[in-house]
Amino acid sequence: MSDAPNATPTTLPAGDHADAVELLGLVAYTELASFGRLAGDAAHAPTLRQRQALSRLAAAMLDRQERVLVRVDELGGDPDDCMTAFDGIFDDFDARTRPSTWWEGILKGYVGQGVADDFCLLAAQGLDERSRTVVVDALTQDTPSQRYAPVIAEAAAADPVLSSRLALWGRRLVGEALGVVGVVLAERPALARLVAAGAAAEAPEPGEPGGGPEPATQSWVFAQLTAEHARRMDRLGLAA
Amino acid sequence: MSDAPNATPTTLPAGDHADAVELLGLVAYTELASFGRLAGDAAHAPTLRQRQALSRLAAAMLDRQERVLVRVDELGGDPDDCMTAFDGIFDDFDARTRPSTWWEGILKGYVGQGVADDFCLLAAQGLDERSRTVVVDALTQDTPSQRYAPVIAEAAAADPVLSSRLALWGRRLVGEALGVVGVVLAERPALARLVAAGAAAEAPEPGEPGGGPEPATQSWVFAQLTAEHARRMDRLGLAA
Repeated sequence: MSDAPNATPTTLPAGDHADAVELLGLVAYTELASFGRLAGDAAHAPTLRQRQALSRLAAAMLDRQERVLVRVDELGGDPDDCMTAFDGIFDDFDARTRPSTWWEGILKGYVGQGVADDFCLLAAQGLDERSRTVVVDALTQDTPSQRYAPVIAEAAAADPVLSSRLALWGRRLVGEALGVVGVVLAERPALARLVAAGAAAEAPEPGEPGGGPEPATQSWVFAQLTAEHARRMDRLGLAA
Repeated sequence: MSDAPNATPTTLPAGDHADAVELLGLVAYTELASFGRLAGDAAHAPTLRQRQALSRLAAAMLDRQERVLVRVDELGGDPDDCMTAFDGIFDDFDARTRPSTWWEGILKGYVGQGVADDFCLLAAQGLDERSRTVVVDALTQDTPSQRYAPVIAEAAAADPVLSSRLALWGRRLVGEALGVVGVVLAERPALARLVAAGAAAEAPEPGEPGGGPEPATQSWVFAQLTAEHARRMDRLGLAA
């Protein structure tokens, strides 16, 4: 681990480094939280086989996290301190969305992590290329959500009562998850900057046909996340 | 994964394979249980830094387990089924040793896993060389216990009340842990055979000075495990 804040050669100004370390810290903290949730779901899984499978998915989260923390170190950040700012950000969400069944817990992970990952992916569009690649790879390659979607879809397809309960629960979860995103955007200007930079990069050039003013960040973010959530619920065969 | 029971070339008779798969299954199940316990301890750790460190140790348990399960597959066993026979073996131990503080939970992991690992290492002496190496490496290289011992020792040294409570708790834990070992030895003849083979290999040759009858397995095992436990508590500076 390097103590010198700018030991790694890079073309980025220091301010961008700090913003990048902040997003990487959020990604790392989210993976730590997902690890704890998945490990808890594993402990209560109905069968030994599911317990083993979920435990493996949880362990894989921390392998991903490690690559994110390596990048934090390369940028001169501290792999522990970068997460400190986010400690407890999911407490309120967790308190408001206590699952009453194992399946509700599994869907909570799928939806909550889905929204968190999508938010981080939006913000990652404002990062330097190397950091962006690290975040995109960590959040999109062989994720627990991808592995677990067919299992939820199958259970829901086989049980119409479960299916309608989970659909209702999914709407509750996404509402609460968007609440967390709103708080993070309001409290962490660095992340709002990254999201705005990413949104601007995606929008058509001003002056070109269809070009216009910068999108209003929060409503633009919510629209993107809600659309992704609808696709996610579609994959489960549940009404969004 | 191979479906043919003896697809891997080996000089071992099939009966020894079955015994080896049984011990490897116990090791794998113990690692899965330790994963769950460490992840649970992590979730309740007082600081984010400890939460991260314990989560990493938990994830590392499953990396170890993977190597054990690869050997199960090589021997023609099923990596999931090999654990099934042991499902729930720690439930009674867990019910009798509910930690009332975070430190008690940490010591429980240290003692419980220590006894389980020592038992598996004794039985491993009766295995074929390749399987023995897999078990010994999994249970002795850079284990969570080795990493955590200094942390417990430091906390106990700084607080005489904690130290005497943990010493008492350690005696309770080792008694309950030996109870689990007694049940396993009584219920799993394959493991008793491996332990007896290992003990016979360690004892002097019959006819040589000091040679004698085979050690009575259970009392010999308990003596070995108790001696290791005393060394373990010494490392923490706690009275065994």
